Amino acid sequence: MLGVDVGSVDQATLLAYGAWIHRLKMYPYFDTAHYLLVTCEIRDEMSSAAGMFSRKHPLSCWLSTMLMCFADSFLASFLLGEPLITPFKRHDDILLATLIWYLVFYAPFDAIYKMTKITPVKVVLSIMKEFKRAHKVAQGVSHAAKLYPHSYLVQVLVGTAKGAGTGVVRPIEQFVRGVWMPTHNELLRPSLYTKVCLIASTLLVLEANSPLINAPHDLVYLGMLGFLLYFKLAYLLFHVSEPFAPFENLFCAVAMGGIWDALSRAIAASRERKAANKDTVPLPGEKKEQ
Amino acid sequence: MLGVDVGSVDQATLLAYGAWIHRLKMYPYFDTAHYLLVTCEIRDEMSSAAGMFSRKHPLSCWLSTMLMCFADSFLASFLLGEPLITPFKRHDDILLATLIWYLVFYAPFDAIYKMTKITPVKVVLSIMKEFKRAHKVAQGVSHAAKLYPHSYLVQVLVGTAKGAGTGVVRPIEQFVRGVWMPTHNELLRPSLYTKVCLIASTLLVLEANSPLINAPHDLVYLGMLGFLLYFKLAYLLFHVSEPFAPFENLFCAVAMGGIWDALSRAIAASRERKAANKDTVPLPGEKKEQ
Amino acid sequence: MLGVDVGSVDQATLLAYGAWIHRLKMYPYFDTAHYLLVTCEIRDEMSSAAGMFSRKHPLSCWLSTMLMCFADSFLASFLLGEPLITPFKRHDDILLATLIWYLVFYAPFDAIYKMTKITPVKVVLSIMKEFKRAHKVAQGVSHAAKLYPHSYLVQVLVGTAKGAGTGVVRPIEQFVRGVWMPTHNELLRPSLYTKVCLIASTLLVLEANSPLINAPHDLVYLGMLGFLLYFKLAYLLFHVSEPFAPFENLFCAVAMGGIWDALSRAIAASRERKAANKDTVPLPGEKKEQ
Repeated sequence: MLGVDVGSVDQATLLAYGAWIHRLKMYPYFDTAHYLLVTCEIRDEMSSAAGMFSRKHPLSCWLSTMLMCFADSFLASFLLGEPLITPFKRHDDILLATLIWYLVFYAPFDAIYKMTKITPVKVVLSIMKEFKRAHKVAQGVSHAAKLYPHSYLVQVLVGTAKGAGTGVVRPIEQFVRGVWMPTHNELLRPSLYTKVCLIASTLLVLEANSPLINAPHDLVYLGMLGFLLYFKLAYLLFHVSEPFAPFENLFCAVAMGGIWDALSRAIAASRERKAANKDTVPLPGEKKEQ
Repeated sequence: MLGVDVGSVDQATLLAYGAWIHRLKMYPYFDTAHYLLVTCEIRDEMSSAAGMFSRKHPLSCWLSTMLMCFADSFLASFLLGEPLITPFKRHDDILLATLIWYLVFYAPFDAIYKMTKITPVKVVLSIMKEFKRAHKVAQGVSHAAKLYPHSYLVQVLVGTAKGAGTGVVRPIEQFVRGVWMPTHNELLRPSLYTKVCLIASTLLVLEANSPLINAPHDLVYLGMLGFLLYFKLAYLLFHVSEPFAPFENLFCAVAMGGIWDALSRAIAASRERKAANKDTVPLPGEKKEQ
Repeated sequence: MLGVDVGSVDQATLLAYGAWIHRLKMYPYFDTAHYLLVTCEIRDEMSSAAGMFSRKHPLSCWLSTMLMCFADSFLASFLLGEPLITPFKRHDDILLATLIWYLVFYAPFDAIYKMTKITPVKVVLSIMKEFKRAHKVAQGVSHAAKLYPHSYLVQVLVGTAKGAGTGVVRPIEQFVRGVWMPTHNELLRPSLYTKVCLIASTLLVLEANSPLINAPHDLVYLGMLGFLLYFKLAYLLFHVSEPFAPFENLFCAVAMGGIWDALSRAIAASRERKAANKDTVPLPGEKKEQ
């Protein structure tokens, strides 16, 4: 269904692009962008305490950065009962993430950290991070599909966990840093990225298992990447933080009891009105009681 | 030893009943009862906030319900190093649990929730839930026995975890809902069901591994179910919430230092009395000091 | 490189000792020392509440003791995706740990607990505990090396987790007892033992994988044990609690931004001085503004 209204030549070009992007190696450039943004996010969260904290608790600081850089792996491994320590197997990744952590927290004059705050740099890094995210979602879905070929829900969940694991792992990362805020968690207020990853995983699972989407896999991958990039750029450039709000509100109104609540309120109100009408025309016997 | 004092015909009937109950399919009726009561429990715990919470945080509400509905599986998988995501593999179960969750939280005029509060309905649902619990305990014990045939403690623990997992998983469920009460946990004050499941699992492990109980397995299963039902009905109808309290108190007095504490206190008291006696007959020289 | 400057006879003796110590059976004597000290530590942490708590919450008390006694196994299993319940497989260990727990908390007149507080007894127990710790570190490293032969970081981490797991597991143990202190965790302020175990694991991994250390394995094991004992005795007898502090401070000053921070401060100070100089020689036009 996708790619039907574009010409055959364009589709071939798109396919070629899709295949190329699908096979892009993440290490080291896209990984670097991912680690940089994640580490800067941790530093932003510590705000003014970052300087002191990174000097006084380097181990805790390093471990919380590693937890967040490989949050997707940790979460997916935890859900699938695989060894949690897997990310530490690849020395290259750990070394790269450690280098980024070191540069962000300890670079002279905060050069690296300040650089990532420049808008064009940030936009380029964010785009690269979405490439990595698309890669992780696709990887998560295909890995889960290998283990549980007929459990579509597991595939969607693992895909989402791979794409938006940082949110769920954050409480543990905060705990490592000695911060504990149980009333703020990702599952209570899912972020935009969690929702986008959920949709992207669903798309990939549908593509693999249903006749609804019969486009080539590389094209679907390209579409998913475009979808992720669209929301990222909308957020970065136009501060669109809740693009799904209208749909969510509509859905909640229709399905999540909104209509019934309104009906209940209307009935309660009409009853009250009736009672009020009765009160305004009081019976003679009631007069003295009031 | 069980079933010796009943006639051979009765035993055959019992055996037939036991076999029939042992082979009862849990899905969908018993599962429904289990999910209904668990979901209502979550809603009761939220008390007046339930309405608002379920409208504002549907994802968190759904996930915490799923965590509790499949708490036994999550806990047993966690302990045995199996994939945590296992319960999400069976679409039927998840769909049924989701349907129940939807009806309890969003049904028009709270019909389903209010219905479960009617005593006869509640008693029937509770009885069905105990059938499911007996099934889970037996399943847990036999699963652990397959993995660790000579580790009786593991079998008892997994059986208990399968039967009374909701208590242990509750802190995580509360965390998902943004509630954190570390001073109230199941392990600190084990509930009646945890104790009952512990006894039931021990019974099943003894039956499989010791010559103490040489009744047929179906009969033991029936006995265990009767045991679970007995305590459930005693609780529901006569509010017997701590039937083991006398035994526990006796055990604590004998084994958990009660006697030694009393002895220590007695010695300390007799010393004080001696000291007091000395004080009441003071030496002439001490008079002026006082 | 090790053992080069000692004579060949001495080396043979050392080797024989190393082999003997390496093959020492931990059960039951060294295990007993380990369980005793861990249980006493839990009791010390509860301080005055220990009496009441152990009488009122025996299950929670027992479970938290088991969690700490087998913390190394739990942590290593969790990291490696192995069944968490493994320590409960060995009935002997659990029975021994339960006996120790019982004696420490419920023995008449606190005899056992008070005995462990006598300095010579404590020193002997601590030395035996270090034998057990060396055994666990070596076991952790070799187990991880079997699973991930080329992932040195994983081997070091698992070795450290086996040797100093109690610190990391403590928050969970405290949670079981209804205590929650997220701002105090091992990773935030790693204890001496964590650091020592990190060094010991690194030593063992280097020995197995690099040509830097070409001494026989038993000798390296003996050296590691000596290293652990040295720091333990220094702590116990001379209260040396932070022997690495000078190295850490030096490392932090050089690598963790200390120099750059000092430079930044110096620049900021010189700027301020310049600004102050300007202020003390105000321009005529600025006079009135002040």
